[in-house]
Amino acid sequence: MGPHPAVAAIRLAVRRVLHDILTDHTRPPDESSPLVLVACSGGADSMALASALAFEAPKLGVRAGGITVDHGLQSGSDLRADDVVGRLVELGMAPVESLAVTVGRDGGPEAAARDARYAALDAAAERHGAAAILLGHTRDDQAETVLLGLARGSGIRSLSGMAEVSGAGGRYRRPFLHLDRQTARKACMVQSLSVWDDPHNADPAYTRSRLRHEGLPALEKALGKGVVGALARTAQLSRDDADALDAWARQAEASVRDTAGLLECAKLYALPPAVRRRILRRAAIEAGAPAGSLFARHIEEVDRLITGWRGQGVINLPGKVVAQRQGGRLVIRQS
Amino acid sequence: MGPHPAVAAIRLAVRRVLHDILTDHTRPPDESSPLVLVACSGGADSMALASALAFEAPKLGVRAGGITVDHGLQSGSDLRADDVVGRLVELGMAPVESLAVTVGRDGGPEAAARDARYAALDAAAERHGAAAILLGHTRDDQAETVLLGLARGSGIRSLSGMAEVSGAGGRYRRPFLHLDRQTARKACMVQSLSVWDDPHNADPAYTRSRLRHEGLPALEKALGKGVVGALARTAQLSRDDADALDAWARQAEASVRDTAGLLECAKLYALPPAVRRRILRRAAIEAGAPAGSLFARHIEEVDRLITGWRGQGVINLPGKVVAQRQGGRLVIRQS
Repeated sequence: MGPHPAVAAIRLAVRRVLHDILTDHTRPPDESSPLVLVACSGGADSMALASALAFEAPKLGVRAGGITVDHGLQSGSDLRADDVVGRLVELGMAPVESLAVTVGRDGGPEAAARDARYAALDAAAERHGAAAILLGHTRDDQAETVLLGLARGSGIRSLSGMAEVSGAGGRYRRPFLHLDRQTARKACMVQSLSVWDDPHNADPAYTRSRLRHEGLPALEKALGKGVVGALARTAQLSRDDADALDAWARQAEASVRDTAGLLECAKLYALPPAVRRRILRRAAIEAGAPAGSLFARHIEEVDRLITGWRGQGVINLPGKVVAQRQGGRLVIRQS
Repeated sequence: MGPHPAVAAIRLAVRRVLHDILTDHTRPPDESSPLVLVACSGGADSMALASALAFEAPKLGVRAGGITVDHGLQSGSDLRADDVVGRLVELGMAPVESLAVTVGRDGGPEAAARDARYAALDAAAERHGAAAILLGHTRDDQAETVLLGLARGSGIRSLSGMAEVSGAGGRYRRPFLHLDRQTARKACMVQSLSVWDDPHNADPAYTRSRLRHEGLPALEKALGKGVVGALARTAQLSRDDADALDAWARQAEASVRDTAGLLECAKLYALPPAVRRRILRRAAIEAGAPAGSLFARHIEEVDRLITGWRGQGVINLPGKVVAQRQGGRLVIRQS
């Protein structure tokens, strides 16, 4: 008798990713037994991921290790981190580490915790020479991320959610991006793995938590149970579309600059709006505008120097960047 | 003292669209006093639109007329249509017509009613030689349309909502696409225009109604009040992106066909996935697959003939269309 379907599903997902990692041509060929780490909070998703990695890795000659990050945001978080370390060791993983981080304030509590976590994971990967770090994000997390991006209203890149492969050299992998949260929970249950529910996940002070417990269920009630899958598909399609348009914009940019390197308005005008606005955005960022503060309305205003020219003055952009039209050229620079 | 801000807003929106229509170079130049019709259900959005059209049109030498469609779906709908006719005549419009239509069943009740309505409006425009038909869709309707498209999970074209200009020769115009529903309601109230609330709009049997009264409010509660505006911006950005990628696919298609007109797999492989899948989709539709039945998963399966070739057999697509790989060529045809 084979394993429970939920356990079979999580193992297959991890096996596929390990196979990808082993056949990655950018990996040093002399590495005999590569190390793959799991980032584990002790919650159901990442505990399921750890259990599947511990099961599959030895069969493929891969060493399985685990990292848990102590964000220090709740009293007793250090004890819980120790507990997670114990559970990963029990699964036969080595090395296993608990990393304490200091969470700053930049970009709000969720972004600050994420930044601190990834910095610690990056450092751990370097220190251990890990080939990859597996993350437990599920299809449900992906759906939430797409809705969070939708709320920004800044275009299809923000609808493209999380990538299956990301980070420096493709270090981060998300094997569960096509699995639902329920499967991960079920896999923990049938394997008698105890899991820890982060109280933040149910705290209505957090946008993602409100979305998970109120927003998405209401949307499913209105639109049907397929919404989560539809959002995840939207992420993949949007990512491919955004990649193609970015490539087009990169290529087109060279052809719209004059010999002095300035953007020619007439040539920009001839491009499709989607391509032209991407070139304008790239130029603004290159001039020093912070990408996160540059909204669609800023780019639209710059675009009107091209498409609705009526002698407008200088346009102020974030990061003390200014845009203006001069003699048929668009000048975007620090003020 | 000027008009109430809500009335000023609806009039400005209509004035802009009338200006667009008057400066449209495709219009016959000998037309001295063009006719613009409003499609009016008697609800707040389209009554506000009718009032603004009646006010602005004479100042620009435009004749203002009105059409109301009786879908015959509720008892007494004919009396209500007569009532709307009376109100449009009171606004000084001519011609004003009530059109009774028969709603079929194709595609569900909402789609069938829409098809019948647009067919009647198209015929009325032809009969009266109208330059345009104005529709009362607001930014809130647009947000709902984007969410309905999101639930299909079929990519950015379905996220692009309703266009400001659509239909044969750009016949349909939506002046209120950037105005919120609340402004239209307010404009009716301060002008003492009685409005009719379609009970369908509050009927939870309709997807759009559930979205309006439960889905969107829950999403606003989770993500903040800016969601409607963000969804509307997403529509515009997605539309521009989808247009650009469609143009790229049309252009690339010629370059990936061999002298016999067959699609070459090696050349398709070299294209960005977003462009390649659009070419495959076009080819399937050209071979007779109905666009509405062709889902992302169909195209993905055909795409694997290019990107994951391992000797797959024939792939069946809707409309009895089959796709197969033969000697490095992709053949998509009727079975």
